Amino acid sequence: MSSTVLYMSMSLDGFIAGPNETLDNGLGDGGERLHEWVFSGDTGLALDETGPVLDAEDRSADHPEAAVGGHLRVNRQIVNEFMSTGAVIAGRATFEPAGGWRGDHHDGVPIYILSRHAAPAWVADWPAVHYVSDLEVAVRDAKRAAGEKNVLVHGAGIAQRALGAGLLDELEIHLVPVLFGDGRRLFEHLGVGQRELERVRVLEGDGGVTHLRYRVCR
Amino acid sequence: MSSTVLYMSMSLDGFIAGPNETLDNGLGDGGERLHEWVFSGDTGLALDETGPVLDAEDRSADHPEAAVGGHLRVNRQIVNEFMSTGAVIAGRATFEPAGGWRGDHHDGVPIYILSRHAAPAWVADWPAVHYVSDLEVAVRDAKRAAGEKNVLVHGAGIAQRALGAGLLDELEIHLVPVLFGDGRRLFEHLGVGQRELERVRVLEGDGGVTHLRYRVCR
Repeated sequence: MSSTVLYMSMSLDGFIAGPNETLDNGLGDGGERLHEWVFSGDTGLALDETGPVLDAEDRSADHPEAAVGGHLRVNRQIVNEFMSTGAVIAGRATFEPAGGWRGDHHDGVPIYILSRHAAPAWVADWPAVHYVSDLEVAVRDAKRAAGEKNVLVHGAGIAQRALGAGLLDELEIHLVPVLFGDGRRLFEHLGVGQRELERVRVLEGDGGVTHLRYRVCR
Repeated sequence: MSSTVLYMSMSLDGFIAGPNETLDNGLGDGGERLHEWVFSGDTGLALDETGPVLDAEDRSADHPEAAVGGHLRVNRQIVNEFMSTGAVIAGRATFEPAGGWRGDHHDGVPIYILSRHAAPAWVADWPAVHYVSDLEVAVRDAKRAAGEKNVLVHGAGIAQRALGAGLLDELEIHLVPVLFGDGRRLFEHLGVGQRELERVRVLEGDGGVTHLRYRVCR
């Protein structure tokens, strides 16, 4: 069964972006600090001047079964997991500043973008990208497309809406050892009372990043 | 060397109390959810109608070396740690709604309460309690009183001020598997830029509580 899983890097004080976010400054001031763990060490992903790329020197990302033991291996395991999902759901405010991931988040899996507006012209040629105005429809279509795989959910706005609507099955928080003090919070305006979670996994990654996995209780 | 260590239970979304805090409702609506782990299982602490009490049936809290292994033992280990500190610092807004811990947080160690006001009459008879108007003085006196032991720091307001002033050495966050959605946040108004932390320990306690220990980098 496919689950919707929110993957987000978050500072200990709850921020997923620094202050002064703009289209050109999508992570806010200093926000790249939260993503260093993804691109350092042996995770199979690297940054070039155009953005994240698969590290061609090392294709063991294709073999998740090798990724066991050690803090560096933990980070690779987590990257392998979210790069093995069968569909992606995000909000427009996450997708567009990221350049639409050039139309392919990973492996060409379908990408569902929640938006009240139609897709902009620069997106129109990308067959994997679907602009959807209804979250429930996005989740249904993404789960169907993902088959047995999970659906990667990404972004604070969509996390808040999906949690509020009971459409988020699991949370994978990459807790980064830093205090931001200011910026955009992951959990805000939830509009729900207390919501119990079930801790299902804790992994200590390199760089002091702790990967916390929770199931959202119904 | 004595360190100041913040011990706080926090929901995954960063709250340390529920909404509608008052003097009679010091944890806010539903806030007791965050402290269940302290009083369940075999931690050596229990709740009676007057508040927290040492569990007289089980004094192994006096022997922290016995507290190793297993999720229940983890919670006991953490309780043993903060009940072995040599002094306490808190704000008036934490201390007074808690009934001033009846003048004795644990073992009669000195308690420093940060307040712009003089101690109220009902506190005057408690020799361990000192009202102090200057945080730096409180930290200096508490460290001196604690000797080789650490200083327990407790409360959101004092945490924020101590972090801002560079007077907090370590954080021990008891991360509780629940979303509150509303209430009082631990990390707010920090008034500092990015502050790096060093993860020094992760322990998985019973009830899905994850104890995260960080050193504040200078």
